[in-house]
Amino acid sequence: MSDSTKILVAQGGGPTAVINQSLAGVVLEARKFPNIGAVYGAYHGVRGIVDQNFADLTRESAENLERVAQTPSSALGSTRDKPDAKYCQEIFKSVRAHGITGFFYIGGNDSADTVRIVSQAAQEANYPLRCIHIPKTIDNDLTINDHTPGFPSAARFVVQAFMGANLDNISLPGVYIGVVMGRHAGFLTAAAALARSDASDGPHLVYVPEQVFDTDAFLGDVKRVMEKHGRCVVAVSEGIADAKHQAIATTLAKTVEKDAHGNVQLGGGALADMLGDTIKDRLGYKRVRGDTFGYVQRSFIGCVSDVDQREARAAGEQGVRYAMQEKRDGTVTIHRTESGGYAARYELSALEDVAGKTRIMPPEFLQGPDVTDAFRQYLKPLLGSNVPQAYRLGRNPVAKIPG
Amino acid sequence: MSDSTKILVAQGGGPTAVINQSLAGVVLEARKFPNIGAVYGAYHGVRGIVDQNFADLTRESAENLERVAQTPSSALGSTRDKPDAKYCQEIFKSVRAHGITGFFYIGGNDSADTVRIVSQAAQEANYPLRCIHIPKTIDNDLTINDHTPGFPSAARFVVQAFMGANLDNISLPGVYIGVVMGRHAGFLTAAAALARSDASDGPHLVYVPEQVFDTDAFLGDVKRVMEKHGRCVVAVSEGIADAKHQAIATTLAKTVEKDAHGNVQLGGGALADMLGDTIKDRLGYKRVRGDTFGYVQRSFIGCVSDVDQREARAAGEQGVRYAMQEKRDGTVTIHRTESGGYAARYELSALEDVAGKTRIMPPEFLQGPDVTDAFRQYLKPLLGSNVPQAYRLGRNPVAKIPG
Repeated sequence: MSDSTKILVAQGGGPTAVINQSLAGVVLEARKFPNIGAVYGAYHGVRGIVDQNFADLTRESAENLERVAQTPSSALGSTRDKPDAKYCQEIFKSVRAHGITGFFYIGGNDSADTVRIVSQAAQEANYPLRCIHIPKTIDNDLTINDHTPGFPSAARFVVQAFMGANLDNISLPGVYIGVVMGRHAGFLTAAAALARSDASDGPHLVYVPEQVFDTDAFLGDVKRVMEKHGRCVVAVSEGIADAKHQAIATTLAKTVEKDAHGNVQLGGGALADMLGDTIKDRLGYKRVRGDTFGYVQRSFIGCVSDVDQREARAAGEQGVRYAMQEKRDGTVTIHRTESGGYAARYELSALEDVAGKTRIMPPEFLQGPDVTDAFRQYLKPLLGSNVPQAYRLGRNPVAKIPG
Repeated sequence: MSDSTKILVAQGGGPTAVINQSLAGVVLEARKFPNIGAVYGAYHGVRGIVDQNFADLTRESAENLERVAQTPSSALGSTRDKPDAKYCQEIFKSVRAHGITGFFYIGGNDSADTVRIVSQAAQEANYPLRCIHIPKTIDNDLTINDHTPGFPSAARFVVQAFMGANLDNISLPGVYIGVVMGRHAGFLTAAAALARSDASDGPHLVYVPEQVFDTDAFLGDVKRVMEKHGRCVVAVSEGIADAKHQAIATTLAKTVEKDAHGNVQLGGGALADMLGDTIKDRLGYKRVRGDTFGYVQRSFIGCVSDVDQREARAAGEQGVRYAMQEKRDGTVTIHRTESGGYAARYELSALEDVAGKTRIMPPEFLQGPDVTDAFRQYLKPLLGSNVPQAYRLGRNPVAKIPG
């Protein structure tokens, strides 16, 4: 890069609680380089690049950047656009017009593919453009990475939510179904299992998209848990599907609709409601409730993993160092050290190894409708410090008085 | 009360994040009295009393009680039972059999009625029983009280959830509908309005059960907001109803079901989905999402108002002092001091003034599909310390380069 280097940063895909840590990491690290001329941010991801909708972040105060870093959801806005080759040419055109020589895109596997194509376009045009993808997703489904920024904080929210749901269910027993985000990968849903501390704690059942969902087996599981504990807490991914890969939400709707008589409650678009209705209808339990936490899992302000915050920040910083110091292109990947306690280390991997690829939960993390110890060990250090704990009264029963 | 006094405490109705503060308040305050012989807790409210399912809390360590006090949801378990006169006789029978002379029930307006009937039964039997109701509900719908323990913490959760939902919606614009608990009273839904800091922040629309919900007016509101802001965040109570007092959830289901052709997505039990489907169907907006936070609003561990914690604790303590020091029966009520900054004070009110009665939002708190400043002033001090704040980047647009 020459003197007066201009770099551009943008955020793509679904927002996370720590995506602005990565943004701050990029901006603050880049501004340490003496040859930095300008740092631009694009509003709403690649759409903003094509529209030349840029924010000048060169003199954004470090103090405000630190506050924004603590704020969830993409401060520069995001986009669901998935650029094809033509779109990427438009991206490159804007980048070149502004003399930008460093492009940093914080996003998931689709964003990595965008960076890959833009990098290609620049090389074909013989234009010196450093292209770096910085990982992000609550789904934890990027390949190569041990885990991805955004996931640990969303997992922490899910853990705290299910700790509460479990306590609520102990207090007023029945069946409770919590629907967690996760279309293809069940990491976030599986995280709910870390809400348990006692052997009787829920969630008692965990259903992820990696495993075929069978309604009859599900009902059998619920019945078994109700008979054992007198209550049942279920964590289920939005994306659970049957053996034909058809989303359960659709399947159940047709079934319940067909059998609908006057007194059967119709299920609908809400998976939680439909699973609940199926339980009430087929097992006869009366107190059944289902909730879909939804976007709050990725956007709730005030529940974040400090480990996640640090790593999201570091991923942004590392990206800048790879580009500006080592003059490389690629995708920043996060790895776990193998010895001693938990620690993360960073590498720059090939864009094509992450771009457009999805990872799902490995079989060793799952067992029946539940997770394994291996998964618990995997996730625990990522949740961060001071995860709240639940306490119970001691057990000192009073003798009954007959008559 | 004689020497070796025995008291009984129980928790009824929906749990809250601070209901164990009230429990701890009762137990710890009672144990300060030298004549206290035993402190019993009943498991699962009045059901536990009838079944003589008692825990001996006399020697529960203060340290563990403090930890339990910080844990959400009823540590003694709760019940949805609504005792009639016969049931209350059974309650009184158990109470008398154990020589209990102080009965403390932490719950809502139904629980207050239970206490009233049991108190009557004891008086008719000429049995010396002090009966105290301690207020509790996330719905904030007890009469006489300025507000009720449990509500401020649930409101804080709703505020933090909608702060996040707003940020998410800025990042990826569209229509977002958050369904908040509230069957008859909209206080908790209205609380979402305190998530706003900027004039363009959401929730932009707030619908509560106190106001007739008109689907056409709702669609007009959403359209107006979309045209103004390019996005729309809606807070809506589970209990919204039409002019005939029929729950919207039911109304919309019938409508959508009747008009259902092959390509219209059927709504169902989930109000969020149905409102979303109606918007997509009638206004044509594509990016529409609805979530039902559900039980997490009252049970989430790690989001609580310190004001709420202190007041829930004090309500329990005050109840014991009224009973054991002043030898009175009644319901503890919380009032707001009129001068200086915010502070709460406590009184003992007549059980019949609270028992079985419901309060709803006064008209001065509502204006159109939104809340008034009066409501904001009312709620703000209750949310507690260190409510997180959201920060934004400065606005420094970069000039576009033509061509």
